[in-house]
Amino acid sequence: MTKPPPGDRVPARELQAYIARAFERVGIAAADARSIAEMMTRADVNGSDGHGIFRLPQYIRRIKGGAVNLRPDIRIVEEAAATALVDGDNGMGHLVMRFAAETAIRKAKANGIGWVGVRRSNHAGPASLYASMPLEHDMIGLYLAVGNANHLPAWGGLDMLLSTNPIAVALPALEEKAVVLDMATTVAAYGKVKTKAQRGETMPEGWMMDRKGQPLTDPTRADEGFLLPIGGYKGYGLALVFGLLAGTLNGAAMGKDVVDFNKDDTTPTNTGHCIVALNPAAFGDVDAFRRRIDTVIRDLKASERMPGVEAIHIPGEGSFAAREERSANGVPMPAALRRALDGLARELDILPLP
Amino acid sequence: MTKPPPGDRVPARELQAYIARAFERVGIAAADARSIAEMMTRADVNGSDGHGIFRLPQYIRRIKGGAVNLRPDIRIVEEAAATALVDGDNGMGHLVMRFAAETAIRKAKANGIGWVGVRRSNHAGPASLYASMPLEHDMIGLYLAVGNANHLPAWGGLDMLLSTNPIAVALPALEEKAVVLDMATTVAAYGKVKTKAQRGETMPEGWMMDRKGQPLTDPTRADEGFLLPIGGYKGYGLALVFGLLAGTLNGAAMGKDVVDFNKDDTTPTNTGHCIVALNPAAFGDVDAFRRRIDTVIRDLKASERMPGVEAIHIPGEGSFAAREERSANGVPMPAALRRALDGLARELDILPLP
Repeated sequence: MTKPPPGDRVPARELQAYIARAFERVGIAAADARSIAEMMTRADVNGSDGHGIFRLPQYIRRIKGGAVNLRPDIRIVEEAAATALVDGDNGMGHLVMRFAAETAIRKAKANGIGWVGVRRSNHAGPASLYASMPLEHDMIGLYLAVGNANHLPAWGGLDMLLSTNPIAVALPALEEKAVVLDMATTVAAYGKVKTKAQRGETMPEGWMMDRKGQPLTDPTRADEGFLLPIGGYKGYGLALVFGLLAGTLNGAAMGKDVVDFNKDDTTPTNTGHCIVALNPAAFGDVDAFRRRIDTVIRDLKASERMPGVEAIHIPGEGSFAAREERSANGVPMPAALRRALDGLARELDILPLP
Repeated sequence: MTKPPPGDRVPARELQAYIARAFERVGIAAADARSIAEMMTRADVNGSDGHGIFRLPQYIRRIKGGAVNLRPDIRIVEEAAATALVDGDNGMGHLVMRFAAETAIRKAKANGIGWVGVRRSNHAGPASLYASMPLEHDMIGLYLAVGNANHLPAWGGLDMLLSTNPIAVALPALEEKAVVLDMATTVAAYGKVKTKAQRGETMPEGWMMDRKGQPLTDPTRADEGFLLPIGGYKGYGLALVFGLLAGTLNGAAMGKDVVDFNKDDTTPTNTGHCIVALNPAAFGDVDAFRRRIDTVIRDLKASERMPGVEAIHIPGEGSFAAREERSANGVPMPAALRRALDGLARELDILPLP
């Protein structure tokens, strides 16, 4: 990881300062703007390219469209010892989710677990960002969300009533890196389809199907079909129950109510999430638990491999490697994104990226 | 559902009485034998054919082999307000899991949620059995387990270090049937492979692969390959994190420690599970929540359908239909299973099925 890969790089601190400038300019309080910028930058440093600064122009567009509350009163509206329902007051999702994760961690310290549901939030970036927050307290994190656009029908159906509702789970190891799973319940996330279209490439069979159930491999025809859930009806079932837990339970959008935030700049999304912190200290010695995680990781990595497979990967490994490399060398900045961000700087009359 | 399907049928009460006779005969206390029989029969009535009385000969074999503790002291060994770790003392999994589910429900009543981890348990039947228990209290249930045989390698690996670690999630509706998802993290459960072999059929591509990564479709060669996880590396990630939560956190078997209970009649399995009860009352009005679930179900079922698709199914629907039909007409009894159970009755010198 010593040789920086080719392409333009921007140091994380510059990215973060630029994002904060943009949010402050459109009316978000300075401390909140810094907080959102810090989390968005973390997403980029961790390699979640589709969930960091890439989203900034869209976020600003929706703020200008009046779809997002700049000065939200984020608060707990229902509470039990180990649970809470947080109303995000339509604030930026990053602020809402940081509040929710901190609430879950506090409850887990006192009661072994904290399960916090969230409604009236917004897109908050990568799932792993929030599932990982309990790790800083030697806890396990679990995150579910309702996606902000429906690209998935019921299994056998044609109406797009479900999103790619993701799950993230993070478990601390002792000497090994934490296990951090972050996945959509579809074979491919919709962002990957858009990337294929931009590059003029075809998609592999299995990503999407058309309205007759035939494979759809031309990403420019994505509007004529749907994403495929993992494992067919099983992935449909997962997308459904994750959506019911993260959305329906909390009074957030799910199913027909979901607003396609890629196509709509004015309607609040009422995004639902849930974040769980689970405290291993309530189950015995924490270091012994973390050592058992180490053992599982090492056994998996030491496994005999299929022909042509160079290494066994543990979920989250790629993200840790990106963090190490990008912390040293900066975040890659594709030319198209750079142009969009320079345009945004002119539009907002703020200092551009260096 | 008025015309009984062909084939031999046995009324549920007869099944239950027979199972209880068998367990009592091998030394399980009468009340415990009844309790196990009740849950195993419920599995059969719900259509979980591979997880009910079908397992009885194996359970009895393992009891006779000394692998299971007949008089367990099932107890909480670690506890916080909203969590508990249950040590099953190597008792029958059904007894351990009923105790764990009741503990989770009790905690959820007081604290909004109860997350109960379990170690030193045994095979407990279908995941949905335990995820559904909170439904009786208008609560949401979530169940995870480490399977009792490893048929899954790491993604790209050859050593079978993972099981088909299942998830079940149950959410109560108001006028509609509850949503009850119950699924393994592999495309096919191993029981389906065994059924294909018994019938002399080939498997579809995508169920299993061989050690070179090629599709394996001959079920008699199952020992030469592995089950495929749903969504490739995604299903591998799910099997891993569900196993870490249900097994590793609780000090139960996971990875190399897993005992193949199909091939071993003498070694305790140290089976791990976790059961979560989540109380919707802690998130607002319960009936309003259940009505929102109704709406999602109805929207999905009313969806336009692909050509050739007769109906959109909600997870759990098949099981509810089986329950209705089998409660009226009895549980189907294939000839081979009938012979095995008659043989068991002779071996144990108990009254056979009528």
